[in-house]
Amino acid sequence: MVGASGYTGEELVRLLLGHPEVDLVAVTSRQFAGKTIAEVFPRFAHQKATGALKFSEADPTELARNARIVFLALPHGLAAEFARPLLAAGARLVDLSADFRIKEAAVYKEFYGHDHPAPELLGESVYGLPEIYRDRIRNATLVACPGCYPTSMLIPLRPLIRRRAIDRRTILVTSMSGVTGAGRKVEADYLFSECNESVRPYGVPKHRHLAEIEQELSRLARERIVIQFTPHLVPVNRGIATTIYAEISDAVVSLDPAVVFDGAYGQEPFVRLLGEERLPDTKNVTGTNFIDIAWRIDQRTHRLIIMSAIDNILKGASGQAVQCMNLMLGLPETAGLI
Amino acid sequence: MVGASGYTGEELVRLLLGHPEVDLVAVTSRQFAGKTIAEVFPRFAHQKATGALKFSEADPTELARNARIVFLALPHGLAAEFARPLLAAGARLVDLSADFRIKEAAVYKEFYGHDHPAPELLGESVYGLPEIYRDRIRNATLVACPGCYPTSMLIPLRPLIRRRAIDRRTILVTSMSGVTGAGRKVEADYLFSECNESVRPYGVPKHRHLAEIEQELSRLARERIVIQFTPHLVPVNRGIATTIYAEISDAVVSLDPAVVFDGAYGQEPFVRLLGEERLPDTKNVTGTNFIDIAWRIDQRTHRLIIMSAIDNILKGASGQAVQCMNLMLGLPETAGLI
Amino acid sequence: MVGASGYTGEELVRLLLGHPEVDLVAVTSRQFAGKTIAEVFPRFAHQKATGALKFSEADPTELARNARIVFLALPHGLAAEFARPLLAAGARLVDLSADFRIKEAAVYKEFYGHDHPAPELLGESVYGLPEIYRDRIRNATLVACPGCYPTSMLIPLRPLIRRRAIDRRTILVTSMSGVTGAGRKVEADYLFSECNESVRPYGVPKHRHLAEIEQELSRLARERIVIQFTPHLVPVNRGIATTIYAEISDAVVSLDPAVVFDGAYGQEPFVRLLGEERLPDTKNVTGTNFIDIAWRIDQRTHRLIIMSAIDNILKGASGQAVQCMNLMLGLPETAGLI
Amino acid sequence: MVGASGYTGEELVRLLLGHPEVDLVAVTSRQFAGKTIAEVFPRFAHQKATGALKFSEADPTELARNARIVFLALPHGLAAEFARPLLAAGARLVDLSADFRIKEAAVYKEFYGHDHPAPELLGESVYGLPEIYRDRIRNATLVACPGCYPTSMLIPLRPLIRRRAIDRRTILVTSMSGVTGAGRKVEADYLFSECNESVRPYGVPKHRHLAEIEQELSRLARERIVIQFTPHLVPVNRGIATTIYAEISDAVVSLDPAVVFDGAYGQEPFVRLLGEERLPDTKNVTGTNFIDIAWRIDQRTHRLIIMSAIDNILKGASGQAVQCMNLMLGLPETAGLI
Repeated sequence: MVGASGYTGEELVRLLLGHPEVDLVAVTSRQFAGKTIAEVFPRFAHQKATGALKFSEADPTELARNARIVFLALPHGLAAEFARPLLAAGARLVDLSADFRIKEAAVYKEFYGHDHPAPELLGESVYGLPEIYRDRIRNATLVACPGCYPTSMLIPLRPLIRRRAIDRRTILVTSMSGVTGAGRKVEADYLFSECNESVRPYGVPKHRHLAEIEQELSRLARERIVIQFTPHLVPVNRGIATTIYAEISDAVVSLDPAVVFDGAYGQEPFVRLLGEERLPDTKNVTGTNFIDIAWRIDQRTHRLIIMSAIDNILKGASGQAVQCMNLMLGLPETAGLI
Repeated sequence: MVGASGYTGEELVRLLLGHPEVDLVAVTSRQFAGKTIAEVFPRFAHQKATGALKFSEADPTELARNARIVFLALPHGLAAEFARPLLAAGARLVDLSADFRIKEAAVYKEFYGHDHPAPELLGESVYGLPEIYRDRIRNATLVACPGCYPTSMLIPLRPLIRRRAIDRRTILVTSMSGVTGAGRKVEADYLFSECNESVRPYGVPKHRHLAEIEQELSRLARERIVIQFTPHLVPVNRGIATTIYAEISDAVVSLDPAVVFDGAYGQEPFVRLLGEERLPDTKNVTGTNFIDIAWRIDQRTHRLIIMSAIDNILKGASGQAVQCMNLMLGLPETAGLI
Repeated sequence: MVGASGYTGEELVRLLLGHPEVDLVAVTSRQFAGKTIAEVFPRFAHQKATGALKFSEADPTELARNARIVFLALPHGLAAEFARPLLAAGARLVDLSADFRIKEAAVYKEFYGHDHPAPELLGESVYGLPEIYRDRIRNATLVACPGCYPTSMLIPLRPLIRRRAIDRRTILVTSMSGVTGAGRKVEADYLFSECNESVRPYGVPKHRHLAEIEQELSRLARERIVIQFTPHLVPVNRGIATTIYAEISDAVVSLDPAVVFDGAYGQEPFVRLLGEERLPDTKNVTGTNFIDIAWRIDQRTHRLIIMSAIDNILKGASGQAVQCMNLMLGLPETAGLI
Repeated sequence: MVGASGYTGEELVRLLLGHPEVDLVAVTSRQFAGKTIAEVFPRFAHQKATGALKFSEADPTELARNARIVFLALPHGLAAEFARPLLAAGARLVDLSADFRIKEAAVYKEFYGHDHPAPELLGESVYGLPEIYRDRIRNATLVACPGCYPTSMLIPLRPLIRRRAIDRRTILVTSMSGVTGAGRKVEADYLFSECNESVRPYGVPKHRHLAEIEQELSRLARERIVIQFTPHLVPVNRGIATTIYAEISDAVVSLDPAVVFDGAYGQEPFVRLLGEERLPDTKNVTGTNFIDIAWRIDQRTHRLIIMSAIDNILKGASGQAVQCMNLMLGLPETAGLI
């Protein structure tokens, strides 16, 4: 595992240490090199190996030789740099950054503001959302785990778009995220007293995650989809609540979302369908790898409203990464996650 | 003042005690009758009169005789019962409940689930939003203060609808409210450990406030307007963050929202225009009677995004009530509020 | 399991459902009878059996026949009522209430304000703190799990008292507890807006937990010990931070707390010793069954300061109950807890 | 006013802008030079002068000439540097840092780790706690405002020490502070997700504020007093809850704290005595300049327990600074504060 100083890295360490079928053989970090996991993360000082396993400097050849899967939990841009030698050395990668999510280098540049550091690898990567790409993930060499916001809306939207149940030009999404979503950035904006008792929109109107959201929706729809998306920061540690609106397609005579969602996700291990009576609450998913989904038809406006909740660090990042790893290694998909 | 056991009642007591131009002559409450204000609200045990002024049972004749303005801070339904004898006795009323906001008894019944208790008074009431009805409020006998959500969207939407800048059929609003918005209801849903670390939608798809929002928007537009609105509960004490979307009207060649908002609100004492560079944050308005408004044009979707923030208890309730009172008494509109 | 409507009951259900060595065969609750676990606790709607297992009315004979261990997660007073027929029917009980913690009925009456409902059972019960009574718990028929505050101070104080390292007349304890400590009581004091942005002492000077704290300290010391204890309520969901002060015993020439604590707890599975360099933080123990303990000697005042942190619902209640069950059933003590 | 980038500086700006008897003529800040107050502090963008008044670089001569009082809201160490030329130029200073609180340069060095930058000024300064030094503050040239923790305990302890009601060798204090107490330090420890859902002791056993606390207690007692003090960080923005323990003096036959406190503080404008029935809660003092004080006698331990609550930024810093300024200028002591 490469890079572990952020919240997703910490959570990934926790999941891998507790995983019944895998061993965490190496954790690298420039910042923490030489320290044990127990020293850096007092929260799980008790887990097996934490007193013995030390952070080291990353050595691609050795990592590729010793680990069946290498996770990259690095800032955007840096991940691609590490990926190249690791892939060359034969490693299979699960990347938690945005570096390999975007298929077109030009779109990457538009949203991230600089040239892609390894454009030749973009074709190889698989978007790590098992609910859409399960089969491809199994055999992938390079998995690009989705962002937290995209996860919270792609899973709900996928069956609706596939079934042409909604008018694709009318999709509008509002999300609220906990503060760990900003990572462990030491910036004044994320100090306790700046976030506590504060609710605020940000990244308006063109948040970076739009690039991958629209890419994936367009692939599902086989036509170009543009959506509206506004994220907000709310004072919780974890959780994303997403509320999605779309007009019901004129072509649909009588939409029964329950049929659509049950058909798509009735057997999914990490999708819980709350239906038309209940509503999601982030506190029911934090600490888990689940996505909870509820919906309502508003007859007054002829719109479908879909609401989801995930833990941004688990189903929105590290949990999803482990889910992908399970698929890649042929393990039960829920191993280490339930 | 009638009824003071809720958060809006408490805040109204605080504002009136600190107001330089008025005296709080009576506070009634069945629950607290006989206790001093200082005993019930330790927070402002120091303010003038709090040790002497006691809660009493409501006596309409005496209230009407002694007070130039009577505030009703009562639950929906109960306010109308108190209003009738008070008006008969000659009082001028500022009502903080929903009882007199809706002009049509049928709409009231649709949204509140029972017949209106005093339909004959509906014609008399003035909707207490000074930014729209300032002149009528000055001379009103019965002012119905708007709800918190309506305030946060009617002020931003008014000039856009007046100027026909947006397509009225495409208005969609997402709001996030602090927990005082639920009042001091002693219900399990509002316990600390149920709200803390929780983000959740509620009242989907037909929140009661929709009735007054659509009524007021329709009056502004002179045609029937239906909107989409989803409120969410977030773990802060106070504050509403509202994000509004609407397609820019095809009739508009080049929309400059700054011109529209400056024209409408450049002189308003409680409207702060943040423009296209900054974004609102509830922490900048809590404890104040201001509404902060920012906007962005999204060229990709041809939509205008308007974001506002208010304190739900002040500009969303008690502050607005005092602003109305100032108008009714011919006082400076900002007296006791800045 | 009898009673599951509170936070400790909910957490106990979660632990038992996830436990690798036991099955939860019955959950009783008057309030929820007929509902499935998944309906009542949406948070763990996914776990095995939650869709099938329904809450039922309690039937002592059947419970005693079907379950190797019966947990009582009931309010004080009610637990004793249920215990009697269950014990008569041959059940082994783990009680999470205060009913069987106090050995003397007179002390119970002093602190709880009414006669003990089953004084004849007091002699039988074992105080369920494995770090002190591990052997007795293994063979117990009736285990009385300690309160959350007592756990946070008895574990740190035990070796110091045993070794006569501190002056027993000078023990003074300040604790800060998260709001779940008050249970799921629907009272105005525990509403979100009353607890959020609030810090306050309560239960001063004679909190009920003092009865069991002093009882257990006195048993350790073999003399009557009286301490000072002040709890405070702080706005977190979970966690107790406890800070303990005591004068270093004059008899001790040179106290090395590390030697004392390592000797006592070096092998304990749920005690983490932070020593003299680090400090505990509730966020490192919430969600776990650990107690973190740090200490400092203050040469200026000749006092030892010991600081601990636990999760009040886990090590302070349901986790400890499962730890006791593991001992009673001869399972690994950490089963289902790490 | 010199320095305004921290929370105390911001609050002081707010108080001075709203003060009915003074004008804020200059605000200096290297970081913000050239910006208006409205730009830097959007929260009070509306107040008089905020759009016109710009931050400037500090010019001692000009400040001394133009301002009747100069406030220093600077980090420790820097304040003393600015004080020297300002005093030389004839200014009267209110310093909010720790630089002039300690009377002995040796003690300063012990607790702050470096030599005092202007030891010759230590004799001149007056400790800015009006409840103790009101008369000296009136005529002072250099007022050193107390720290937040010292304020929360010196006011409660003063009359008890004066009256010899408690045993001075047994004073022990536990405090809990909101996160603004750490200032606007951009450090990982104070990020939202590190403080939220966290309770933790810090600065054990020798917090810097001990220096001034013991200095002032010793002056009151006319003998050397050493106390025990442990601060804790809790997840609120503002507020300090302090719980003080001391053994009742053997010399006292029958202590009635109400008589002691009423005698000392019955006329104090910012002290609210809650007595033996009620308990303080930080939420009742945040946003105000009050200190709330309650007490209990514990007959079991022969100790007096005194609990106080203040807003750490107001009575603990900026509010107290304005209170001092009011005294220095001969204004009503409560001007601009109630």
